[in-house]
Amino acid sequence: MTGSRNTKDIHKNISSSTSAPVPISSAAPVFTELHPLMAHPEHNPSQEDKMEGQAKTAEASCWHRTWARFLKGVSYFSGDMEVFAKWMERQFFLLQLLDWVLRGAAQVMFVNNPLSGLIIFAGLILQNYWWALNGFVGTLFATISALFLQQSRGAIAAGLYGYNGILVGLLMAVFSNARDWYWWLLLPNIFMSMMCPIVSSALASINSRWDLPVFTLPFNILVCLHMVATGHYNHHFPQVLIQPRSELPNITWSEINVAKLFRSVPVGIGQVYGCDNPWTGGIFIISLFISSPITCAHAVLGSAVGMVSGLALSAPFEDIYFGLWGYNCVLACIAIGGMFYALTWRVHLLAITCALFCAYLGSAIANVMSRFGLPACTWPFCLSALTFLLLTTGTKAIFKLPLAKVTYPEKNLAFYWRMKKQEKAEKAEKERKEREEPLKAVNEQVILNEKEQLKLELQQMEEGKQE
Amino acid sequence: MTGSRNTKDIHKNISSSTSAPVPISSAAPVFTELHPLMAHPEHNPSQEDKMEGQAKTAEASCWHRTWARFLKGVSYFSGDMEVFAKWMERQFFLLQLLDWVLRGAAQVMFVNNPLSGLIIFAGLILQNYWWALNGFVGTLFATISALFLQQSRGAIAAGLYGYNGILVGLLMAVFSNARDWYWWLLLPNIFMSMMCPIVSSALASINSRWDLPVFTLPFNILVCLHMVATGHYNHHFPQVLIQPRSELPNITWSEINVAKLFRSVPVGIGQVYGCDNPWTGGIFIISLFISSPITCAHAVLGSAVGMVSGLALSAPFEDIYFGLWGYNCVLACIAIGGMFYALTWRVHLLAITCALFCAYLGSAIANVMSRFGLPACTWPFCLSALTFLLLTTGTKAIFKLPLAKVTYPEKNLAFYWRMKKQEKAEKAEKERKEREEPLKAVNEQVILNEKEQLKLELQQMEEGKQE
Amino acid sequence: MTGSRNTKDIHKNISSSTSAPVPISSAAPVFTELHPLMAHPEHNPSQEDKMEGQAKTAEASCWHRTWARFLKGVSYFSGDMEVFAKWMERQFFLLQLLDWVLRGAAQVMFVNNPLSGLIIFAGLILQNYWWALNGFVGTLFATISALFLQQSRGAIAAGLYGYNGILVGLLMAVFSNARDWYWWLLLPNIFMSMMCPIVSSALASINSRWDLPVFTLPFNILVCLHMVATGHYNHHFPQVLIQPRSELPNITWSEINVAKLFRSVPVGIGQVYGCDNPWTGGIFIISLFISSPITCAHAVLGSAVGMVSGLALSAPFEDIYFGLWGYNCVLACIAIGGMFYALTWRVHLLAITCALFCAYLGSAIANVMSRFGLPACTWPFCLSALTFLLLTTGTKAIFKLPLAKVTYPEKNLAFYWRMKKQEKAEKAEKERKEREEPLKAVNEQVILNEKEQLKLELQQMEEGKQE
Repeated sequence: MTGSRNTKDIHKNISSSTSAPVPISSAAPVFTELHPLMAHPEHNPSQEDKMEGQAKTAEASCWHRTWARFLKGVSYFSGDMEVFAKWMERQFFLLQLLDWVLRGAAQVMFVNNPLSGLIIFAGLILQNYWWALNGFVGTLFATISALFLQQSRGAIAAGLYGYNGILVGLLMAVFSNARDWYWWLLLPNIFMSMMCPIVSSALASINSRWDLPVFTLPFNILVCLHMVATGHYNHHFPQVLIQPRSELPNITWSEINVAKLFRSVPVGIGQVYGCDNPWTGGIFIISLFISSPITCAHAVLGSAVGMVSGLALSAPFEDIYFGLWGYNCVLACIAIGGMFYALTWRVHLLAITCALFCAYLGSAIANVMSRFGLPACTWPFCLSALTFLLLTTGTKAIFKLPLAKVTYPEKNLAFYWRMKKQEKAEKAEKERKEREEPLKAVNEQVILNEKEQLKLELQQMEEGKQE
Repeated sequence: MTGSRNTKDIHKNISSSTSAPVPISSAAPVFTELHPLMAHPEHNPSQEDKMEGQAKTAEASCWHRTWARFLKGVSYFSGDMEVFAKWMERQFFLLQLLDWVLRGAAQVMFVNNPLSGLIIFAGLILQNYWWALNGFVGTLFATISALFLQQSRGAIAAGLYGYNGILVGLLMAVFSNARDWYWWLLLPNIFMSMMCPIVSSALASINSRWDLPVFTLPFNILVCLHMVATGHYNHHFPQVLIQPRSELPNITWSEINVAKLFRSVPVGIGQVYGCDNPWTGGIFIISLFISSPITCAHAVLGSAVGMVSGLALSAPFEDIYFGLWGYNCVLACIAIGGMFYALTWRVHLLAITCALFCAYLGSAIANVMSRFGLPACTWPFCLSALTFLLLTTGTKAIFKLPLAKVTYPEKNLAFYWRMKKQEKAEKAEKERKEREEPLKAVNEQVILNEKEQLKLELQQMEEGKQE
Repeated sequence: MTGSRNTKDIHKNISSSTSAPVPISSAAPVFTELHPLMAHPEHNPSQEDKMEGQAKTAEASCWHRTWARFLKGVSYFSGDMEVFAKWMERQFFLLQLLDWVLRGAAQVMFVNNPLSGLIIFAGLILQNYWWALNGFVGTLFATISALFLQQSRGAIAAGLYGYNGILVGLLMAVFSNARDWYWWLLLPNIFMSMMCPIVSSALASINSRWDLPVFTLPFNILVCLHMVATGHYNHHFPQVLIQPRSELPNITWSEINVAKLFRSVPVGIGQVYGCDNPWTGGIFIISLFISSPITCAHAVLGSAVGMVSGLALSAPFEDIYFGLWGYNCVLACIAIGGMFYALTWRVHLLAITCALFCAYLGSAIANVMSRFGLPACTWPFCLSALTFLLLTTGTKAIFKLPLAKVTYPEKNLAFYWRMKKQEKAEKAEKERKEREEPLKAVNEQVILNEKEQLKLELQQMEEGKQE
């Protein structure tokens, strides 16, 4: 109840904030919105303004111009590369499709950026050619299937129908017990990738009632489906053998390898795509930083929280080194920390709590799924993030963005600030009106009286006539 | 969001199409709607009209009259036997109850037809007396329980509270490890059957939010409940032992039996009611054909798709011969192919995709459930059909009927065509209006001006008076 | 569809019944509403009135006065202790917090009463000091976490954020395989307790769409999460070993112990809090009776139904003696029997059916969960009660209270009666109006005519002027 009312209030705010005439929204916002992307706080605009006013020396001016040019250059390939997306709309179809596929590859990490997608594919190739091929096929066919089913063109262009495809393709190759380059695997790969938009659309029909995204649920459902439908003992598509733990693991704290422990942070980020190569993980970190430093910071933080949770729950060290405790926390921490909530200090704490909860959940789900010979996939991330997004609170410092307004953390933050400003302005306006209200009320009374008089005079006239 | 808007549009269309004066709706539509039921396309009405106009020989007229009489005769026992249902309303209560029970038996296959129900019971008796008795008891008590709980009389009369009952009754007998004629089994049978309307009503409260049917979910829930609550090791109600596969099945492709493979198609249809007798399956096919040839065709198609999927996923041949790969696909293919979507070519392809997905899901769910000693029941059908019904697309060729308008594929199609016609007419009407709009706008302006003048004159009069 | 319409009607009724001027609602209702709490039907007010009228002897008057004083005294500590809650609002914060914690402890049984909570803590201490401490810590931190997250103050004050906390704390201690007073256990205990309000809030966002409570679902989710995440083979937080049954249990009906069977009724009530001491169960019964005799009666009834179900499904006697068949039925029977439905004879029968279904479901869920080394927790209660609350019927004798109006069975009943009365009065009023309608319609016609005349005269005047 309160939840729905909140949503309505938000919508009201949005409509008022967007319907209001904001003449500066054509070029300037791109600039201002990109400011949070800068990693050099000593050069924020307010300080620059001061510098300008105080000492307008030639040197500073030159430095300033260079900086502005740099900012503009950054804005072309950071964030969601809106300018590039618009330019793409007028290009050849196959080029567009490639753009969508690259964006789809990056959308696994909530990044809508073809450059990040390209770097991620580079990371995948570094890990394993065959896996990378499967991932590409998955993304491609998921996007094509979405086109066939006439899904929203905007969502397809943002890669929102591709990210489940890449995960389905990759993980089906990763968990296959057949040798690499077993070409028959492409058949179920293509079928499952093409099912992605159907399952996505179905889940969106449900989740949209609560204004929730579908996350990687379609991938989780379809990969688990494929793995449990075939299983380890299958002639055509055997899966790797996963079995539940049935004895006390041998954990000797003196044998802990601190270097490996630290390396588990990038490995955890790589495990989002099923990769255990720390260099691949490092490349992924770079791809995140290009698009959104906030996302990148939360990814690293999430991986670290997952690693610590693993130690706290006395998990076998090998699992921690292998990044199995990290990848869900990475995604959960990104999702809560600035992506679907506007980033404030409280939200930052909430993101860490969510990562912690996600690690706990990850262990639980891994134990349950292993009974069926299944990996945990990203179920823990999906369930924990959905739980934290369903949360309703009385505080305004935890502000869930309406799903249609979610872009990337920096832009979300700009939206939140603009909305808050608008709200304040409206409040001031309202108060001003209330002060002027008595006068207005008098005016209205006057108008009403005039109407009444008109009627009376009419009656009098009639009477006069009758007389 | 888009989903809900679509639904609203549909509702608008419906209301407009039903509120519009359709004077021919009394007797003629019954005739036209039944046309698609005919399996002789060379004698469709348009051709007949031409024949009449061209050569009105005595012979053709005689043939035509015979044909019309035949059509009318067919309309009495095909489709949902509406005339019979209306006649039944004035009969003795026990006779009505029997009608509801028979319709309930057929509703498992989405057929609302007491004759089909009767034939299905004949098929069950051919399979096993004891099972047939349990099925009858289940249907009866489920219907009675719905009456007690004062559920919608229309739904009860359509057999919508009976079909879960017959499945509960049948399958509890099929999976019981006790000997046949173990009379104590009737106790949990009656209890579970009587729980059917409660679970149905509860699920309908949830599913109705998305305008979805409950399918056989109550049956799945209740039979799994009974089986897992008692289990194989129970003194009172032991269940058959079902265990997960733990080694590579022995599959030699040279040993494949093509005759048995073909026989698996009717067996798959029989397995909807838990019957492995191919003759029983054949009888079921006849019962489907009587009510709706489209349903019948999709049932056979679904069973065939399931069989092929089983081969593709290298399932043990015995499972395929036994129809375990078919029955879910049968139901999924019927549900999508014309029952809840209006049958177009795209929907036909969608139905085949759904059957394929359902077969995959069936294997997955069977493997998961076997860990708990449970069969797959019809969970795969329910989940795959619900997924495909939740799908939202931008194309108008995939039209989901509002749940209240679902009857049988032929009538659904007639409804869809009528709606499309209505839409076209409305569009034309709108365009016509828009062309006449300028004239209307002028008129409105005139009226407004007159009002203004009235006011002005009033003022003048006042002024004149004052002077 | 019908469901939502029903809800609207109910809301209409409520708003009309509450918006209507009910001047006696200040002090008298407390008196009248508490009447059903009295266990001496021979002294109900109507009889007393008669007595007063007939023979106003000094003795009777004295007796009557004593009785009234007794009633007033009872009203201070029975029901939801509203007077006390209001007095508490002005007290020191820590005292308030204690009140909320005590109410939280009692809310497990749907009792909003700090005195009952105190008695329940006494029962827990009788069972095991360490468990009681864990329960207290759980309740405390769950309440504090809800305060941090700025949840609804009214809900916190009613203990609705504490009851999952006490269960999480208690059951984590009960199922821990470590020795008592293993202090490290408090760490996950506090974390999981603090997660309670988050999970509660998230589930409430979903369940509120169907006007359903969250019951003990957060507890079920979090305790299962902790247990399966750590498992039996864990160095830090080992859990007790729970394994599935894999052979026929040895049940000899001649060995049944009738005394133990009867003792299983209070033990079943104690098992709601994981306690197997029959005295603790007895103390819990007292705490229920203080707040609401109807709740108390249904608790005992539920436990008895569970015991009988266990015998019917041939459960091992030890399980029945240990109360494992009772505790879910206790909660289900309370929830349906007067708490969320207004208590009528039909609802009473429904509550017994629900308890029966719950016992069945309990066995099923226990078997499924044991595969993962988990206990059944209170999943069976949650699922069965939610199913029965989602039920929609055509009969008015099964009236589901809107969630915002749920207090305790006696007050709910008073609300239901008042609503029915109001409805009757409205109906009579409506009929009266309809009789007077013709007159009103004439009046309206007159007014309309006058307006028309005014217009006409205006036109005439204009014409006269022009002439």
